[in-house]
Amino acid sequence: MSVRTIEVREPVMARNNEYAAEVRRRLDAARVTAFNFVSSPGSGKTMLLERTVRDLGAELPIAVITGDVQTQNDADRLAVHTNRLVQAVVTGGACHLDALQVLTSLDAIDLDATRLLFIENVGNLVCPANWDLGELAKIVLFTVTEGEDKPLKYPKMFQNARYAVLTKTDLLPYVPFDVDLAIANAHRINPELQFLQLSATTGAGLTGWFDFLRGAVPAPVA
Amino acid sequence: MSVRTIEVREPVMARNNEYAAEVRRRLDAARVTAFNFVSSPGSGKTMLLERTVRDLGAELPIAVITGDVQTQNDADRLAVHTNRLVQAVVTGGACHLDALQVLTSLDAIDLDATRLLFIENVGNLVCPANWDLGELAKIVLFTVTEGEDKPLKYPKMFQNARYAVLTKTDLLPYVPFDVDLAIANAHRINPELQFLQLSATTGAGLTGWFDFLRGAVPAPVA
Repeated sequence: MSVRTIEVREPVMARNNEYAAEVRRRLDAARVTAFNFVSSPGSGKTMLLERTVRDLGAELPIAVITGDVQTQNDADRLAVHTNRLVQAVVTGGACHLDALQVLTSLDAIDLDATRLLFIENVGNLVCPANWDLGELAKIVLFTVTEGEDKPLKYPKMFQNARYAVLTKTDLLPYVPFDVDLAIANAHRINPELQFLQLSATTGAGLTGWFDFLRGAVPAPVA
Repeated sequence: MSVRTIEVREPVMARNNEYAAEVRRRLDAARVTAFNFVSSPGSGKTMLLERTVRDLGAELPIAVITGDVQTQNDADRLAVHTNRLVQAVVTGGACHLDALQVLTSLDAIDLDATRLLFIENVGNLVCPANWDLGELAKIVLFTVTEGEDKPLKYPKMFQNARYAVLTKTDLLPYVPFDVDLAIANAHRINPELQFLQLSATTGAGLTGWFDFLRGAVPAPVA
């Protein structure tokens, strides 16, 4: 069965990569920094984005594209915190976003008035790993309740991400989770992976997260 | 792009369903009860199976088929607790098990000496939903750290499961999770879904889980 799937996947992936290149050209032209948020379901992608849009959105204009299998709940949650566009993409069963969906979404976003674009992918540690959406980098969220072995079990995702955010650190006192072991496991897969740690619930680590985002955004053209 | 994918998926799914029917015939003939464990990564499927194999395995002979994308870590964890076979299936990147993998695994299992078969699927709330593996029922694990909205966001999985196990209930004091709301959301998607609640860490709820399993297994032929 796998052979029949691969025959179709290669041309589909090639077309995806052309769309991703076009997304990247448009973002570069407008000097927009884009991150592709990937993780398991329930790792806190939307909650971190809520805090980020609310607390950093006045300083850095932020647009968001949310991908979801069936609903637009995440987009609705985010829209409460901003007057800027939150573009919902319902994949209709597909387990990841593709670059054509992102490219189409860009038409609805005022890129010249945007500094930072978050693409919130479908909650899934397998499917989104190999899909380039035209982002600067993938950020994988990794929750302290998930177990230290996740980078070893889902290596493609941790290989293809440039940054990892350890979330829900407020729960560390209550779970048997060894942060050093989790990071070491991730570095076995991807030695370049850079970690941030935070809790969107308590706010711990958010200052570092916001500083990271400020540093990722180029200065506006004078 | 989706059209090209669907052309391939339909015959692949039809073949899968034939294999699933063959799995079901063989399990029925041997009076083996099989459950397909599905959930997000890190929801505690392996840990619950560890406790189940260790504490119930002497009373009810249990075999396990674990599916994983790249590793056989889960099978190794389980093998510590039993002398019986733990069959690891590495999907090599695929985001779910299929029935042919299960059918092939059955050849390695002494079905006549088995009462209960757990198929631990890949950690993924999207892909495994539509794949019949020949099981009696899907059991979806749902962790209290994931947010009450998961049934609404991943409805196919909750539609196609007959049972849901709410896991890591020991963390309820530390997370903003409303159990009644989570169950109500799940019942909006699937009114017949039956819930169990437990913590494999503290052991709370395990007696109910074991009783459920005892009730699901037919009496041995005299």
